Amino acid sequence: MSRFRNLFRLFRVLGTRRNVFSKSSSSQSSIFQKSYAKSNKFLWFSGAFAVLTSAALLNQRKLSLESPSHPVKLEIDRASRTQVSGEDLLDTSKSRRPASVVENSFQELQKLGLGERITREQHELETHGSDISFHDKVLPDIVIYPQDTTEVSNVLSICNKYQLPVVAYGGATSLEGHILPVRGGVVLDFSNMKRVIRVNLQDMDVTVEPGISWNELNDYLRPYGLFFPPDPGAGASIGGMVATSCGGTNAVKYGTMKENVLSLKVVLADGRVIHTRQRVRKSSAGYDLTHLFIGSEGTLGIVTEAVLKLHPIPESHGVAMCYFDRIEDATSAVIDVVRASVDCGRIELMDDLMVKAVNKSEGLHLEEKPVLLFELAGSNHAVNEQMEKILNITKNHKGQNFEYATEPEKREELWRARKDALWSAYSLRPDCELWTTDVCVPVSRLSEMIHHTKEDLRRTNIVAPLIAHAGDGNFHLVMLVRPHDKEEMKMVKAFNDRLVKRAISMEGTCTGEHGIGEGKREYLVTELGEDAIGLMRTIKRAFDPNGILNPGKVFMPEEKLEN
Amino acid sequence: MSRFRNLFRLFRVLGTRRNVFSKSSSSQSSIFQKSYAKSNKFLWFSGAFAVLTSAALLNQRKLSLESPSHPVKLEIDRASRTQVSGEDLLDTSKSRRPASVVENSFQELQKLGLGERITREQHELETHGSDISFHDKVLPDIVIYPQDTTEVSNVLSICNKYQLPVVAYGGATSLEGHILPVRGGVVLDFSNMKRVIRVNLQDMDVTVEPGISWNELNDYLRPYGLFFPPDPGAGASIGGMVATSCGGTNAVKYGTMKENVLSLKVVLADGRVIHTRQRVRKSSAGYDLTHLFIGSEGTLGIVTEAVLKLHPIPESHGVAMCYFDRIEDATSAVIDVVRASVDCGRIELMDDLMVKAVNKSEGLHLEEKPVLLFELAGSNHAVNEQMEKILNITKNHKGQNFEYATEPEKREELWRARKDALWSAYSLRPDCELWTTDVCVPVSRLSEMIHHTKEDLRRTNIVAPLIAHAGDGNFHLVMLVRPHDKEEMKMVKAFNDRLVKRAISMEGTCTGEHGIGEGKREYLVTELGEDAIGLMRTIKRAFDPNGILNPGKVFMPEEKLEN
Repeated sequence: MSRFRNLFRLFRVLGTRRNVFSKSSSSQSSIFQKSYAKSNKFLWFSGAFAVLTSAALLNQRKLSLESPSHPVKLEIDRASRTQVSGEDLLDTSKSRRPASVVENSFQELQKLGLGERITREQHELETHGSDISFHDKVLPDIVIYPQDTTEVSNVLSICNKYQLPVVAYGGATSLEGHILPVRGGVVLDFSNMKRVIRVNLQDMDVTVEPGISWNELNDYLRPYGLFFPPDPGAGASIGGMVATSCGGTNAVKYGTMKENVLSLKVVLADGRVIHTRQRVRKSSAGYDLTHLFIGSEGTLGIVTEAVLKLHPIPESHGVAMCYFDRIEDATSAVIDVVRASVDCGRIELMDDLMVKAVNKSEGLHLEEKPVLLFELAGSNHAVNEQMEKILNITKNHKGQNFEYATEPEKREELWRARKDALWSAYSLRPDCELWTTDVCVPVSRLSEMIHHTKEDLRRTNIVAPLIAHAGDGNFHLVMLVRPHDKEEMKMVKAFNDRLVKRAISMEGTCTGEHGIGEGKREYLVTELGEDAIGLMRTIKRAFDPNGILNPGKVFMPEEKLEN
Repeated sequence: MSRFRNLFRLFRVLGTRRNVFSKSSSSQSSIFQKSYAKSNKFLWFSGAFAVLTSAALLNQRKLSLESPSHPVKLEIDRASRTQVSGEDLLDTSKSRRPASVVENSFQELQKLGLGERITREQHELETHGSDISFHDKVLPDIVIYPQDTTEVSNVLSICNKYQLPVVAYGGATSLEGHILPVRGGVVLDFSNMKRVIRVNLQDMDVTVEPGISWNELNDYLRPYGLFFPPDPGAGASIGGMVATSCGGTNAVKYGTMKENVLSLKVVLADGRVIHTRQRVRKSSAGYDLTHLFIGSEGTLGIVTEAVLKLHPIPESHGVAMCYFDRIEDATSAVIDVVRASVDCGRIELMDDLMVKAVNKSEGLHLEEKPVLLFELAGSNHAVNEQMEKILNITKNHKGQNFEYATEPEKREELWRARKDALWSAYSLRPDCELWTTDVCVPVSRLSEMIHHTKEDLRRTNIVAPLIAHAGDGNFHLVMLVRPHDKEEMKMVKAFNDRLVKRAISMEGTCTGEHGIGEGKREYLVTELGEDAIGLMRTIKRAFDPNGILNPGKVFMPEEKLEN
């Protein structure tokens, strides 16, 4: 097993989370929070890995909330992290603040009463200097674990005064270098801010702090018969999900974060705190600040609370699986399913190579052909009725070996291939690492897009199985690469460049759900043009005149554009 | 029938619309547009009236596209328009641009080749100087009927140079004075820009110009089995609907404009043209400019194209009606229906007074009690299954005389009360005019909110039947007022003030779907606080440094706030 996979599986068991749920949250705390805090068995994630959007790609781990009283640090050789894009990054060493400024800021920050929750220890800097993407490691100067909005506000006031960069850090599962402190400064780790502040059962909404992951939130909500649909990589935090405007497999039915956040509490660059909106379902009150912060990747403000829309857990589920000889038949079937108002929770597509990988890795015997997986939800009868429609539609598109299940075990079995897909990819080239792409096109162009991409893969001999959230036109290639083979990396980067530009040329986007971060900055300009990006820069400058909030993300350095 | 109702029913049959659909729209034009343009029977709206959100509150009128070759102007005594809020308005005479600046701008604008589509004729200024709300009439200096984005861009460049205000004008159905040119300048009437540029049946989206109304769009889409759900007042244009972030009766199932716009083409204050986003279902590419323009009421840019999400027209419909002795039982039933995942297209509530008005006006014999109306959509079986659930839930909440229909005629009959509600209100006080309120609270607070509001109504003797989009917690009171009775108007204004503040105190909003315009500016500050409004102002200043775009809307004058 490769070094990278080890890293994924062991990475970051942060004992500093000891304070989670132990602090009552002012007037807004509720009985739910208290009862949750009492629970000493709490499903926890050991991983900070995302990579692809799937409900439960990875194992979970139970941790007691009472343990341990001192941080347990897991030393990981982060220096061995894959480095493939150095030449594209900013020369960050030049843009860090001088040591004296950092020192002065640190001294002032220490006066905030953060105690052990502010640190410059090397292992903390190391832990917070990288994510799981291929982007280069960069250490921050200071790490802070804030406990509440006031602390975040105080920290930002000081950082703004010293013009010291601030990067918010949640589940660290982003894939485009979003959380890298490329200009040093402070990393705000939100692992102490993961309280469920309030659940409104009648209104079906929940107010949470940004550090809680969607998996933890859904564990919490299950007894109430409610859930929060967006499901990016396991362990992703709500704060990070807001920041990247993530999607997931449920997006085809429930939408992305854009459709599932009601309101945000945000600390602005100068420390002011705002609420973007009231907790109502509908409002036309002024500019839509909520959506402006969703997807802004921590560059406009730091979210310290989010009010999220919840949905009832459906009464019944069904899973269907159907093979196709040609991937274009599968995508045509998807279009018809969506047009026929079939109420699918998920519509996922895997190509033959991905099925091969799953067979190899998991010892399955699936047909090595493109396969569609549908998840349906609703009443028993509705699920059966919709399944019937899907059967007919897939038949019309030469679908084969339609399988269908409503019983939990059989459903699980059918869904297993999709669930295990990502890690199975390794089986195709065991000496390689993963590079996950993320483009999205109008669903009418998906077939053509995949066709040209597969041609390109064939020409370049890149091994890259495909997983698509087909109902949305969004797909990922899991490219298996040898980061130290410079020739190969050059070829893979060129391929990714063609892939992204092909998507954009088909009215698609350079990122369906992973965000821009560092990795897609140049493509954002290609996609929307310099005037639209100029407008985004105008907003950035107006919100954060000193440029302290997650600098180096979303936008190319202006000097680089001007050259 | 009162003067105001006459005005509503006769208002603005604009012959200047003669150019509509007669111009092919560059490379993006499609066969759909052409075939539509050929049709010489096109359902048209004679009204510019909105008032409440309902699918088809008013009669439609068929106009031939070929007729007439010269504008037909309907002279209306707009000077008699109700004036109730003069003291709240800006002293607009002081903030108009000097006559010489207007004259110079006009001369330069005339060089754009607009021909007869630029005018300073008095009757054009009169027509474009008011909407249907109670806000004072203010005349613009110039009226322009642009034909395409380039013309809008050229106009804005010139206006920006001369710092001359620009107000976009669509269906003129807004209710809070949104389109009033309070500082004079140019009104851009979009009645020549209502082309359907492109329909993508597979992707279920449509690209339209801003002047088309949602009713016209849905007439156009019907043959394709698709529809666009937001349904504010009949005749509302897509541009105006984007500007106000409107909702409608379908919002409980399909969302508001926030959930139904994919992308916008926008002309900025200085004439630059941007696309906010690609035409994909999912994108995390940069800041969400689309949502920033939705609800910005023409103060940040002028929309010249919108890509809208479409939905399949459901296979089958059902309507149910159920009476309650107490309005709180009705609202409790609504909460349970939503929580039970009953897939309702619409959930509408009328109080006993509104039922009384409908009986009186339409000669019906409905029970004069609070009544809930549900609309369901889906497959035949699904509709029946859901209806069964609603029956059980309403029974649990002491619902009475449950009626249910799936056949079109019977459905129509059941829905008739809701459809006729607004105009029926006049029957309660035939000598009065309407003032429609718009607040929204979390649905858990709806019952309490209505209770206190009804108490307040009883104390003040104001006659104000109630219609609620109950599933969203959004309700309107149709206040029957005598505008010239100063004492009464003072009392009604004070009541509205208490109503709005009551909603805000219950975590609600001063506007669920009508927007801020002029009428709700002070409440926006109450609702979100000065820091959030300050942030909105920051955006406004960054986007429109000369303040030419719909000045005097959304924000209170800063000098007024400082006093």
